[in-house]
Amino acid sequence: MSLKAGRLFLSRLRKANILTVHRNQSKLASLHSDDVNYFITTLGPQRVKQDDLQSYNQDWLRLHSGQSKLVLFPGSTEDVSKILSYCDKKHLPLVVQAGNTSLVAGSVPDKDEIILSMGKMNKIEHFNDTTGVLQCESGCILENLESFVQERGFIMPYDLGAKGSCQIGGNIASNAGGIRFIRYGSLHGSVLGLEVVLPSGKILNMMSSLRKDNTGYDLKQLFIGSEGTLGVVTKVSILCPVKPDHKIVTFLAVDQYTKILDIMRSVRSEMSPYLSAFEMIDDETMDAVHTNLGLSIPFRSPFYVLFELSLSATCAEDRIEEQLHKMLEKYLDNGTITDGTISNDLTSLSKLWTIRERIAEALLADGKCFKYDVSLQHEHFYELVEVMRERLKLADVKRVSGYGHIGDNNLHLGITCDRKKDSDEIKKLIEPFVFEWIRDRNGSISAEHGLGQTKRNHIHFSKSSDVVAIMKQVKNLFDPNGVLNPKKMLPDD
Amino acid sequence: MSLKAGRLFLSRLRKANILTVHRNQSKLASLHSDDVNYFITTLGPQRVKQDDLQSYNQDWLRLHSGQSKLVLFPGSTEDVSKILSYCDKKHLPLVVQAGNTSLVAGSVPDKDEIILSMGKMNKIEHFNDTTGVLQCESGCILENLESFVQERGFIMPYDLGAKGSCQIGGNIASNAGGIRFIRYGSLHGSVLGLEVVLPSGKILNMMSSLRKDNTGYDLKQLFIGSEGTLGVVTKVSILCPVKPDHKIVTFLAVDQYTKILDIMRSVRSEMSPYLSAFEMIDDETMDAVHTNLGLSIPFRSPFYVLFELSLSATCAEDRIEEQLHKMLEKYLDNGTITDGTISNDLTSLSKLWTIRERIAEALLADGKCFKYDVSLQHEHFYELVEVMRERLKLADVKRVSGYGHIGDNNLHLGITCDRKKDSDEIKKLIEPFVFEWIRDRNGSISAEHGLGQTKRNHIHFSKSSDVVAIMKQVKNLFDPNGVLNPKKMLPDD
Repeated sequence: MSLKAGRLFLSRLRKANILTVHRNQSKLASLHSDDVNYFITTLGPQRVKQDDLQSYNQDWLRLHSGQSKLVLFPGSTEDVSKILSYCDKKHLPLVVQAGNTSLVAGSVPDKDEIILSMGKMNKIEHFNDTTGVLQCESGCILENLESFVQERGFIMPYDLGAKGSCQIGGNIASNAGGIRFIRYGSLHGSVLGLEVVLPSGKILNMMSSLRKDNTGYDLKQLFIGSEGTLGVVTKVSILCPVKPDHKIVTFLAVDQYTKILDIMRSVRSEMSPYLSAFEMIDDETMDAVHTNLGLSIPFRSPFYVLFELSLSATCAEDRIEEQLHKMLEKYLDNGTITDGTISNDLTSLSKLWTIRERIAEALLADGKCFKYDVSLQHEHFYELVEVMRERLKLADVKRVSGYGHIGDNNLHLGITCDRKKDSDEIKKLIEPFVFEWIRDRNGSISAEHGLGQTKRNHIHFSKSSDVVAIMKQVKNLFDPNGVLNPKKMLPDD
Repeated sequence: MSLKAGRLFLSRLRKANILTVHRNQSKLASLHSDDVNYFITTLGPQRVKQDDLQSYNQDWLRLHSGQSKLVLFPGSTEDVSKILSYCDKKHLPLVVQAGNTSLVAGSVPDKDEIILSMGKMNKIEHFNDTTGVLQCESGCILENLESFVQERGFIMPYDLGAKGSCQIGGNIASNAGGIRFIRYGSLHGSVLGLEVVLPSGKILNMMSSLRKDNTGYDLKQLFIGSEGTLGVVTKVSILCPVKPDHKIVTFLAVDQYTKILDIMRSVRSEMSPYLSAFEMIDDETMDAVHTNLGLSIPFRSPFYVLFELSLSATCAEDRIEEQLHKMLEKYLDNGTITDGTISNDLTSLSKLWTIRERIAEALLADGKCFKYDVSLQHEHFYELVEVMRERLKLADVKRVSGYGHIGDNNLHLGITCDRKKDSDEIKKLIEPFVFEWIRDRNGSISAEHGLGQTKRNHIHFSKSSDVVAIMKQVKNLFDPNGVLNPKKMLPDD
């Protein structure tokens, strides 16, 4: 075949738009002992694990189990590069695993993929205490980073319940949102640079400590929220905000959902420079926290609001507290709230936050928990919980719980049942109904948890087929052999 | 040739990594009268302009002129789709033009490309006065949007000197930074959704009014800062912050650069919840504003600092002002500043901001202005201006000016000369020296202005060749025939 003929054929393929379709269908291979030997020789035996892999194969919600026979622990970017380049050549599939706290089974194998466990790459490389820019390896645990920067007068721009075990690389791969989102915004804004290894083994150095850099496409953005399907994030450069000097947490009892919106509106307009969290919890959820974990709740009510103000030294804390007290008195008088408490000392602050942060654990303690992480406009936000409660009232579920980052329109819907119950039966009652309901109200079926394994085939409820088609082309561009996190995020054809 | 043979050839091409190299080299066509007739028939004669195109062909700095013979004014997304699909089929190149305020000649033709002028697509489609989410067409002028949302208690998350003529679509294509960046961050964080037309004519609906949506790759991010080379942004959804109730602007005279850093550190640590701008200006720049525009300057000094605090009603403005006055007194006593003024009324605020906002115009009034928009760590920030002044002291330049968003490490370096001077001669003294100097200090050669025509072949000073190679593959994926903004942003091979 002449070169010219080849080009012509190529151009016909392009026109028919079928160029990329074939790329990802190359057959994936299975692991052989030769492969294991290669990794032992290349990385050293201490970086290769073949036994006791249950905790690596099992997702946090205990709903999905993989059958991986091999976990690798790279110690450097070069290790990652060698592993990826080998796997790509051999068409061996991998799943990248950070803290394995995914709520959509995004970090456990679908089948028997090799697990790339990033936790050994946990060095903090640099911190600039003028600009607040932190540079570290991707396996650093969020809580460790938080302590490190706090000691230097800064905080991480996001905070999650899973902070004790989740890793920054996983946070970036899943575009984590969390509690401080309302104040410091998305990781698309605060991540300044990444180092990423592509399946080919090529190391893309996009590490920057600059806030502004408009030299070409901002490729790092593609990796934020790509759930490890395009490349492996090995290093991160992130902008940390100045640590507030004081925090004030207000916890309120509210008897009707719409009153939460009234409170939010006035807090937003009056306190916006300080507002660092605005959360809601319903009493079904609070009951799980109280009953399953034994935490004490200051008062009980159909709904709870928890909002936090972060203040610097010059913020006239006394006046703001005075203002808050006045607001609460007014709310008590006019029936907007039925009870409330304001905390400004670390111990009581932390007690209130613990209630919020341990909800996921409390719900899981019911047995099984089906989690839906949803973006919805406020007029539909809690309606979804009520609709699901009505729909499931005759089903054998324990609890339909609603809580979340209402300040960011982000609801967490949790439906729990006994551990022994048949998942499929309950799931059929929930899905696809819940997704259709969200789609019909222009919501997102995944606000911050991502799609992983459990939601990937529902992407069409939130994204058009044209957009999904482009996503697949992007995947093909970066991972032509489809070795990275197969059966994650992107839907089947 | 059999299908199988074609695939094999394709796979060899992929392996050799030359697949994408050929795509963009398809020959671009020239405009014929048939094409013009097609546009007249399809869009109507009032949307097709063939005479008096000088202002569309000439860039804002008057350093580059294109020779376009045709300007099209689409009135809808469908118009854009028809135009792009036609041009793509015919391999007719286009340049997308918003307000034509690019400082890197990014919005004027390289040769005779058709100009797609977006200003007729200027409808505001929706505003949610609870969430602050604005949805509009991409041809809306920034200042009009600012007024619109201000009337509803919000502000745009960015502010630029060019606001009177620049359009939101151009701001997004160039990932505009500007004055409020220090407070509200990057457009990568505040843009919630886009509608984009691809060269094929396909309309990608990625419009969302949700703050959180983790359903697949965040493709809209690719278009932010892509300088119109991947697709045409037709609609925008953007998050607007709550409008502050008060502003306080402090303007200081400082005699040494390092003292600016001292002031910045203390303002940042004490006033961070309120800080909405932190700018520096040197006296060479101020002289241009005073001499060329006749604006009066409150006092003169080697350097000036201008910082703004944005306060809501509950912010105890009196206390903050008191604090500011104390700070200034201390600074006067210890020699950190030599003079200063604090303004909190709209008239004097606006006078101070006018000085800052009219700098670009003032420098251009010298004749010609070579602009460099640079990110640098603070230890090197002003050093660059001094180095260039020393280097050019014997050259026939009028002025070497330094100013910019120092709070974001973003310096604007302006070198002016007489209108009649030979550009090439002076440019040779500046480039590539200036880019090498920035590269050696890990800076960015374009912080917020982009690469356009003037900087595109210097991208290697800020991005590795591996990263640039991927950018070209991304370009090929979206624009296989290379019709969109040729010779912009991406370097020659």
